[in-house]
Amino acid sequence: MPYELHYWPMIQGRGEFIRLALEESGADFIDVARRDDEAGGIEPMLVRLSDPGNPRPPFAPPFLRDGDVVIGQTAAILIYLGPRLGLVGEAERDRIWTHQLQLTIADAVDEAHDTHHPVGVDLWYADQRPEAQRRAKGFRESRMPKFLGYFERVLAANGGERLVGPSLSYADLSLFQLVDGLRYAFPKASAAALRDAPHVARLHAAVARRPRIAAYLASERRIPFNEDGIFRHYPELDA
Amino acid sequence: MPYELHYWPMIQGRGEFIRLALEESGADFIDVARRDDEAGGIEPMLVRLSDPGNPRPPFAPPFLRDGDVVIGQTAAILIYLGPRLGLVGEAERDRIWTHQLQLTIADAVDEAHDTHHPVGVDLWYADQRPEAQRRAKGFRESRMPKFLGYFERVLAANGGERLVGPSLSYADLSLFQLVDGLRYAFPKASAAALRDAPHVARLHAAVARRPRIAAYLASERRIPFNEDGIFRHYPELDA
Repeated sequence: MPYELHYWPMIQGRGEFIRLALEESGADFIDVARRDDEAGGIEPMLVRLSDPGNPRPPFAPPFLRDGDVVIGQTAAILIYLGPRLGLVGEAERDRIWTHQLQLTIADAVDEAHDTHHPVGVDLWYADQRPEAQRRAKGFRESRMPKFLGYFERVLAANGGERLVGPSLSYADLSLFQLVDGLRYAFPKASAAALRDAPHVARLHAAVARRPRIAAYLASERRIPFNEDGIFRHYPELDA
Repeated sequence: MPYELHYWPMIQGRGEFIRLALEESGADFIDVARRDDEAGGIEPMLVRLSDPGNPRPPFAPPFLRDGDVVIGQTAAILIYLGPRLGLVGEAERDRIWTHQLQLTIADAVDEAHDTHHPVGVDLWYADQRPEAQRRAKGFRESRMPKFLGYFERVLAANGGERLVGPSLSYADLSLFQLVDGLRYAFPKASAAALRDAPHVARLHAAVARRPRIAAYLASERRIPFNEDGIFRHYPELDA
């Protein structure tokens, strides 16, 4: 039975970390909300979110369904999928280290999001532009270089090619996605930061060249970045 | 050999989720930065954060040291400690579900933090008061009730006393801490929200009565809430 991913169909968002893991491993899965038949759309997702018959409901999308198991929270989904897709080491300490990296990537993603929504997730960007410019300045000048510098250090200490051990892990795919998003949202600031993080820049390029990832990125399955997602390109925030 | 917790000594912060798990289980541990001898203070933490000899460095406090294992990220530390302290079930799906709840609690904690620091983590509260009031309004009126309502639903579906199965888990301790912080920071808004989440309110009270937790809360080891931590009481944000 294929895995079912339930996530908003118009954005990469947090669901993209799951999509990349599933695509890289060639897993059999359905991106339910993106199906174009009557079984698709966001209705099944909304129904499952409020399903009174599930005593373990997810709080929000994305969530994964595998038979009778339903798992929410991006990082928790990757803990579940990691060993099943061969995207994490066997040893407990490798698994926890990979997860620790994933959580740090998630923190960076959250901070990238908050640059355009500092005052409220329920408000429009247009209603918080001055605050967004203040917040983005701190992100560009301080936080982005700090995060990328950290991953640079981790890569360098592990031989330069992978975050954990000798094999590709879901954390590598997630770091690719973080960098891809930063390059879209902050082309100027990220170019400067990546000059100081050459291993991170090379990992991003290497992941993009992996056959299944390259095929995915070139396909219609990869939703283009846009100004509804986490990584938004507002030129005034990259000034 | 005792566990070593490394975290800021003046605040509960994210370290408190680790302290509660260690205290409840009676584990042998040292809160290194709070030692009052020459081996204490934040110096050992700062040294370990930048230790070039550790190829797997934490990004930020809190981190845990167990012999030669050093683990950062609160939720990753709890994955490691959970089975060792008897604070999570044996089955994989129970472990992932407990972790999923922990990550959702962490999201709520992040949003509570952002009410007083919407524009920048590097700025003072005094420099973002109007923005904080806007952000806090959305948190009080929409997000806090949504989070507490979610945990209410999960508790009710599991018999009312525990989040996962029949036994206490680290997620129960973390939900206690979230509620404790909300009661401190937003006494008016949290009282209203907890009236609609009676199981959550009862879990908070029940955890506070557990013998080891009660002893801990009454001791000097429990740092009082203050306006340097995550949960800050600024009356204008609870208006």
